[in-house]
Amino acid sequence: MNNQESQSAGTTKPKLTIDELRKEIAAIDTRLVDLLARRRRVIEQVAVVKKEQDLPVFHPAREEYLISARRDQAAAAGLDPDYVEDLFRIMLRNSRMGQLDTVSSAGVKPEARILIVGGLGGMGGFFSRWFKHSDYEVRILDREDWGNVQALAAGVDLCLLAVPIDITTTVAGRIAPHLPDNCILADVTSLKAEPLKAMLSSHSGPVVGLHPLFGPTTKTMDRQIVVVSPGRNHEACQWLLNQLRVWGNVLVQTSPEEHDEIMGLVQALRHFATFTFGQFLHARKVPILRTLELSSPIYRLELVMVGRLFAQDPSLYAEIIFATPERIALLKEYIQSLQQNLDLLQRVDKTEFNNRFREIAKWFGPFSEQAMRESTFLVDQLVHRF
Amino acid sequence: MNNQESQSAGTTKPKLTIDELRKEIAAIDTRLVDLLARRRRVIEQVAVVKKEQDLPVFHPAREEYLISARRDQAAAAGLDPDYVEDLFRIMLRNSRMGQLDTVSSAGVKPEARILIVGGLGGMGGFFSRWFKHSDYEVRILDREDWGNVQALAAGVDLCLLAVPIDITTTVAGRIAPHLPDNCILADVTSLKAEPLKAMLSSHSGPVVGLHPLFGPTTKTMDRQIVVVSPGRNHEACQWLLNQLRVWGNVLVQTSPEEHDEIMGLVQALRHFATFTFGQFLHARKVPILRTLELSSPIYRLELVMVGRLFAQDPSLYAEIIFATPERIALLKEYIQSLQQNLDLLQRVDKTEFNNRFREIAKWFGPFSEQAMRESTFLVDQLVHRF
Repeated sequence: MNNQESQSAGTTKPKLTIDELRKEIAAIDTRLVDLLARRRRVIEQVAVVKKEQDLPVFHPAREEYLISARRDQAAAAGLDPDYVEDLFRIMLRNSRMGQLDTVSSAGVKPEARILIVGGLGGMGGFFSRWFKHSDYEVRILDREDWGNVQALAAGVDLCLLAVPIDITTTVAGRIAPHLPDNCILADVTSLKAEPLKAMLSSHSGPVVGLHPLFGPTTKTMDRQIVVVSPGRNHEACQWLLNQLRVWGNVLVQTSPEEHDEIMGLVQALRHFATFTFGQFLHARKVPILRTLELSSPIYRLELVMVGRLFAQDPSLYAEIIFATPERIALLKEYIQSLQQNLDLLQRVDKTEFNNRFREIAKWFGPFSEQAMRESTFLVDQLVHRF
Repeated sequence: MNNQESQSAGTTKPKLTIDELRKEIAAIDTRLVDLLARRRRVIEQVAVVKKEQDLPVFHPAREEYLISARRDQAAAAGLDPDYVEDLFRIMLRNSRMGQLDTVSSAGVKPEARILIVGGLGGMGGFFSRWFKHSDYEVRILDREDWGNVQALAAGVDLCLLAVPIDITTTVAGRIAPHLPDNCILADVTSLKAEPLKAMLSSHSGPVVGLHPLFGPTTKTMDRQIVVVSPGRNHEACQWLLNQLRVWGNVLVQTSPEEHDEIMGLVQALRHFATFTFGQFLHARKVPILRTLELSSPIYRLELVMVGRLFAQDPSLYAEIIFATPERIALLKEYIQSLQQNLDLLQRVDKTEFNNRFREIAKWFGPFSEQAMRESTFLVDQLVHRF
């Protein structure tokens, strides 16, 4: 608490009323927004230069340098450095997005022709817009267009499959014979083993499996993850991967098998648990809005994720949950592991609960401490911002 | 994309190099931090006036007015209003916290003497610090101090029970005979029916049940929820509730029965589900760090919440999970509702899954749309900030 400033103000000059102080705040705030607008205009000039010189938008080292300079200035001025860092992280993100708008409009291989199968669907439409925005020639093949497949596939450099998982194999077999030999065949479904096998067996050219970990409502690709499973002739696929990087995506490479196994946990189990929680709330006719008034921020987040699931298309989730026999086996195993806790509850056995708890805690090891720090930060953010 | 500015700059004056542009950005950023520091000093003067005139720190209408003025200015200057709102929400929060530092140091009833039973524990220590910060006389009664109970309880105005749930009833009965008749007896445990009953039957003066929905690691009480269950002579408890409001808490009133039922869902079921998810990861020896690299932000949040649980004391969770027979029955019901989905998986019955899904979606009704908007915003925040 630093009252020196206000106390000296109180003794040396006549004290300001609350209205006068509020006018002063309004004047400061107006100048702040003016400066933000000026900053944005300079950033736009930077983007133009970066585009001309083919420089990347995201420059982590420079961002960290800029942040520490502002933290130092904040500390010297008696401000909380974390507070000032928080503000500048938002400003830097805004800068990156503004620059991505300008820079990403430059195609990495602007002469390439792109065919999107399922281009009228959610993800198909999403990628179609991004490729068009970067001045590629984009052709769409949707359900009604198979009669015209010859003309649509002629001379394309990339064929992107953006169709539901359960028909990806069929569609790959149907489109492949029409593609040029040097054309990349890629998919964006949330499984990788089956689609890759189908693409590799039906097409002899470059093949790559992609899984964007975001949905079509995403406004920006800045720092969004795309999982990449190489299929064949990965060198020839590089321009496509570079295009994703230019748009702001972070690429993570996996084998198709590792991908599918981990997604069983990250997606299928997660969605299934969310589904069953919603089902339970419905079965008990829980007064949702009242629970929100009495809820911790984490419960609120949990509940809006449940509501989010039920606002969407069930077949989207059925596809992910029932995708493979391994996945269904995983979910069965999960339910069975819950049943083992039933007798624990039956016997009100706190001692056994504590024992199981400690054993699991030991296995988590140092991750627990990291999780504690990170979650405290996140929970604070949730309480104070929403 | 607004390139007019940069294009005209390119034609009318010599183009700046990227280094020159970066210097310009650094100059703007320095002025921004200067203005933030000036803003903070004016806010400190506002806090002094508010303290003198006994005005509340949080003034929702004024905050919303200020935000819309800045949104309008932002839109007129070609900036995204949401971006500018985001920055000002953080600044307003910083203002509130700075003001709370000044204003909350004033006790609502500064002459009151406060006895905290369990004052060396997590929550006991937390409240002990806050009361001391507001210049109350704070006395601590911990395990070793019962020999001295007579002197410690003499003339106190508030006795706050901050002991584990399973001994709250015993401790209430033990301390009550020593308290003055007009002393408030209150608890801060996460159950309300049992503790209130015990406090009412052992003490004849004012009684109130409190459940702060935050832990002792919280840095600020700004906008944190405290659930309040009135016991007896609620009028006499008002100064305590006002003190919580002055510290920044939001109070929500419930009956003890409603509280305990809703907390069964919000806390017990939530913690139990988190425990079982951790147990499952452990049983399958899942490579946690690798799943994080391939994870959507929501899975990351889920996983750090699991890690957070296992970084803490198991008995804390055992107490919440095994608190009452109703609660254990609720958890059993939850496991049984999961078993109903086992046959669905067994039969790979997508149609039945879709039917159940639609029925639940109908029950959620308009909440789903709200949840969709809110979760999209939160997920965007998680992707871009962490």
